[in-house]
Amino acid sequence: MRLTLVGFGTVGQGLAQALVEKGGLFERRGLAFDLVAVADSRSSVVDVDGLDPASLIERKRSSGRVGESQQTALELIREVDSDVVVEVTPGNPKDGEPALTHIKEALRLSRHVVSANKMPLALHFAELTGMAGPGLALRYSACVGGGIPMLETGLACREAEEVIGIDGVLNATSNFILTKMQDEGYDYATALREAQNLGYAEADPTLDVDGFDASAKIVILADHLMGRDLTLTDVNPMRGLRDLTPQDMRRAKARGKAIRPLAVVGDRAEVGPKEVDPRSPLNVFGATNVAVFRCEDSGERVVAGSSGGGVATSRAVLRDLVAIARGWGRGRV
Amino acid sequence: MRLTLVGFGTVGQGLAQALVEKGGLFERRGLAFDLVAVADSRSSVVDVDGLDPASLIERKRSSGRVGESQQTALELIREVDSDVVVEVTPGNPKDGEPALTHIKEALRLSRHVVSANKMPLALHFAELTGMAGPGLALRYSACVGGGIPMLETGLACREAEEVIGIDGVLNATSNFILTKMQDEGYDYATALREAQNLGYAEADPTLDVDGFDASAKIVILADHLMGRDLTLTDVNPMRGLRDLTPQDMRRAKARGKAIRPLAVVGDRAEVGPKEVDPRSPLNVFGATNVAVFRCEDSGERVVAGSSGGGVATSRAVLRDLVAIARGWGRGRV
Repeated sequence: MRLTLVGFGTVGQGLAQALVEKGGLFERRGLAFDLVAVADSRSSVVDVDGLDPASLIERKRSSGRVGESQQTALELIREVDSDVVVEVTPGNPKDGEPALTHIKEALRLSRHVVSANKMPLALHFAELTGMAGPGLALRYSACVGGGIPMLETGLACREAEEVIGIDGVLNATSNFILTKMQDEGYDYATALREAQNLGYAEADPTLDVDGFDASAKIVILADHLMGRDLTLTDVNPMRGLRDLTPQDMRRAKARGKAIRPLAVVGDRAEVGPKEVDPRSPLNVFGATNVAVFRCEDSGERVVAGSSGGGVATSRAVLRDLVAIARGWGRGRV
Repeated sequence: MRLTLVGFGTVGQGLAQALVEKGGLFERRGLAFDLVAVADSRSSVVDVDGLDPASLIERKRSSGRVGESQQTALELIREVDSDVVVEVTPGNPKDGEPALTHIKEALRLSRHVVSANKMPLALHFAELTGMAGPGLALRYSACVGGGIPMLETGLACREAEEVIGIDGVLNATSNFILTKMQDEGYDYATALREAQNLGYAEADPTLDVDGFDASAKIVILADHLMGRDLTLTDVNPMRGLRDLTPQDMRRAKARGKAIRPLAVVGDRAEVGPKEVDPRSPLNVFGATNVAVFRCEDSGERVVAGSSGGGVATSRAVLRDLVAIARGWGRGRV
């Protein structure tokens, strides 16, 4: 399958690296993926006979650019004949752009889409999934849980009964910060600084610590698994971590509880730090994600793991590509 | 799809009940399942136009038999034209019979098979899966994790990388007993008695507490997800719980550890109580199951839940039936 890759940060480079390392695995399974076009925010590169992923990574690391062309991502999507557009640009909670336009244009042109960018889905889930359909795939496993197969596990849960609610720790940065505040007695600013030093938090941590990232994820989970029609602004309240103090953590502990950055959907969706029982499956530690699916008949089902950053997230993109490759023979529009 | 159901204990009755309750859900999804033949160990009943599941449950509860015919399960498999044979008889770790013969005969006759009976798979995985193939399904989600989608989550994990090891708490009865010994200071016999009183353990608890059940499950996980060719006797050592004392639990606790009934596969497979870190995802409580998939690139992925008994397990059978129904249109042999 020929891929147009839009975005070449940690996830995009993780994907390129995997295409080098996993060639043998895919070959054994009868699958082949070729990068034919790649864009980052400043440049692009095209070769319809297939680009060499290793050289792209090297050029990006040495020059800060993936290519030498000024063609934009949108132009690549329109002009390069590829089977799948992989959208891995950074998220923008305001309007989902430019990823939203990339995804719509790709689907309009009947190209399959794999998105690791969650904001277009969290803002326009029904519209985007409505543009896809039999023979035209829009997949977005990487949007929730990094590399953890949260959507896949949730889908299995709802095959034979309804998922009636979902609780999760969906932002690893926030959980890392709260774990440090709980275990080490750090204040919020110190814990955030450590998260930044270790690469778990961005220089501007707003998306993570103010709840936008977790909100986008709980919206996607609810729309995908519970048939809801929520959008980002339906998450209410959306509370962040900035006001939490070490004293709050100690008070919770004295009550035999732990505070975790929860995202919850049942009748309504909300995000914010909340107390959980120490033995709850939601009481996970460090840069970890967990989702608990409340199933109508069979109780709670839990999926969890270390969020793992760009490499792990690129594995979720690969899973989506494999799924499309397997289904492809059964009739693409 | 027309179903022949072999076995009418808690899982079989749970499935029959679900066919009553979930009719609307399946109809909305364009699926239909009809029971055309059912056998328990003492009787059977056939109606090619479809049996009424509610009356079957009622007759079983009032008379101890599902029907009035003496036709055996094997005869039903051979003589009644159905699409899927659902095998939910109790497990027999010695030779997997009679389920082994049921499954082989059904596959030989090109009937899809869904098995909740793990022993035939744990004893003859390669042979049985080799008899199935494109267009002929053998599915066995209910064999591992009760209703928890363990196999499905594991399969998602290995779509884009290898699973290099699996650790699990796979027998809920054992974990219930160890939790009671740890939390309440019970000795083994008292904890077992409570498990029996609550319906978590059979009158003869051997399969659970001596490790046969967990061994069968780790073999199926390893063969299914890691491409191994293990069988039940390859699990070595297989240790049970009978020798554990409250003192062992206290000693572990003094070292800051918990003892959990683990099943592990890496280079080799073993089963037995082992110490884990209190914050390990393997440290689950009560009648709970968990599997941790060690993924080559992206780290640990965890799936867990309450094991939930017959009703939950019947939901896994239903998931398999839905998967077969969805794939059916794409060419049955």
